[in-house]
Amino acid sequence: MITVHSGQNPRVRALRDLKQAKVRQETGCFLVEGVKLCAEALRDAEVVTLLADMDKAEAFAPLLAQASDVLLAPGRVVEGVCEAQTPQGIAASVRFPRPLALSAAQGPLLVLDGVQDPGNAGTMLRTAEAAGFAGALLSPQCADAFAPKTTRASMGSVLRLPLWRGMLEEALVLLAEEGYTLVSAELGGTPFQKTTTDIGARFALVIGSEGHGVSPAVSALCGLRVSLPMRGRAESLNAAVAAGILMYGLTAGNLGGVDRETGT
Amino acid sequence: MITVHSGQNPRVRALRDLKQAKVRQETGCFLVEGVKLCAEALRDAEVVTLLADMDKAEAFAPLLAQASDVLLAPGRVVEGVCEAQTPQGIAASVRFPRPLALSAAQGPLLVLDGVQDPGNAGTMLRTAEAAGFAGALLSPQCADAFAPKTTRASMGSVLRLPLWRGMLEEALVLLAEEGYTLVSAELGGTPFQKTTTDIGARFALVIGSEGHGVSPAVSALCGLRVSLPMRGRAESLNAAVAAGILMYGLTAGNLGGVDRETGT
Repeated sequence: MITVHSGQNPRVRALRDLKQAKVRQETGCFLVEGVKLCAEALRDAEVVTLLADMDKAEAFAPLLAQASDVLLAPGRVVEGVCEAQTPQGIAASVRFPRPLALSAAQGPLLVLDGVQDPGNAGTMLRTAEAAGFAGALLSPQCADAFAPKTTRASMGSVLRLPLWRGMLEEALVLLAEEGYTLVSAELGGTPFQKTTTDIGARFALVIGSEGHGVSPAVSALCGLRVSLPMRGRAESLNAAVAAGILMYGLTAGNLGGVDRETGT
Repeated sequence: MITVHSGQNPRVRALRDLKQAKVRQETGCFLVEGVKLCAEALRDAEVVTLLADMDKAEAFAPLLAQASDVLLAPGRVVEGVCEAQTPQGIAASVRFPRPLALSAAQGPLLVLDGVQDPGNAGTMLRTAEAAGFAGALLSPQCADAFAPKTTRASMGSVLRLPLWRGMLEEALVLLAEEGYTLVSAELGGTPFQKTTTDIGARFALVIGSEGHGVSPAVSALCGLRVSLPMRGRAESLNAAVAAGILMYGLTAGNLGGVDRETGT
């Protein structure tokens, strides 16, 4: 346990620099903030360094005891590292979890094709974990899964859900060869109720960008295009809400009204 | 069409004051901002006054022609009335739509029991319209449906979805007497898949507050308590996402895997 006093201390600066995507790529680490996420990181991932407000060291003792490398610093120094509006006095650098291995994937996968808002992306990853998905693929245009806003919106799911980031086309071709059904959510797709009873667990659900939807090259690879029914004069749903309805709706057995004879 | 030049003009101030809940209650009007919402207000509701950037009057001409009372003002004056970070130079005061008549309700209803975040409340109302709900009830502790943030998050659904605001207990008793099934979403409720095949269209779905869930008095009135299955180590879903999954899941026929023999 080391005590530092200045925000200019090189180790504190190294933590603060994890807000930058470039530094995250170089170091293979990202930052989580707050008691809950730090506790989950200690439980579910590999914490490199835990930084805590020295005045709260006693309250944080159970967490500090689990970390091999602890920095204590004045509250204002910890705040300088954190992004949250009400920082809780604790943050951790965490090693990127092991990425999703496409060729070994078994369960349902979420595919984000240009989802740019970190809050939307994080919320979708949170829902994917809750719905029992085996992992998620993110196109290069997506929000960074390990940016602070995404991490927070995911409520820790990025610590656990295996992720893969890269050009989607080749990855989706590989998944199709492995027997995956590729499903895209698109305006004007087949109304959801008619399409999906027997899809099973090996499917990849593609969610497009908030402004432009699924990209044409990705859409062309999908064997099934689905669309949620819109009643009233509503033109669309919030992107994270639509993704959630589809994720729970496609995992047979999760939802009310599922035919238990044919559901898998 | 009247041209004004100062943000201190009484009519401009009256529009700006609609950001205050008290003024909205006194006048029975609320404010919408932006081209899309103003166009929907002109189509779906009763616009009292349309305020537009005088330098964009030509572009806005099709909208201005539909309003009986138009104020033109310099861009900075219009911006002063708007809340959006990137104001589009147009706003309108709109009369509250006719409230939901509880005793005449027919289709599914959404009940918000202390949903305090305007973004969450607005997103849930947007989803309710899209899922074909007949209206929504909001407890006094909920975010104001006609506050600017809620209105924006609803994407105009507050212009169309009939709303009712007040103490929930009596209203829910009335709905139960009218034959409504009262369903609450609660942690530890019956897993959703097992409960809901035959619920029909006359049900009210209660969503609790982000922090405290459904209030005990309201929960006690509900004949059915449902809970979405959580896989992985996810502890909860985003409130608006969970509400969306349940709204679409409970409206039989909307979702994949619904047994079309028993779905209504």
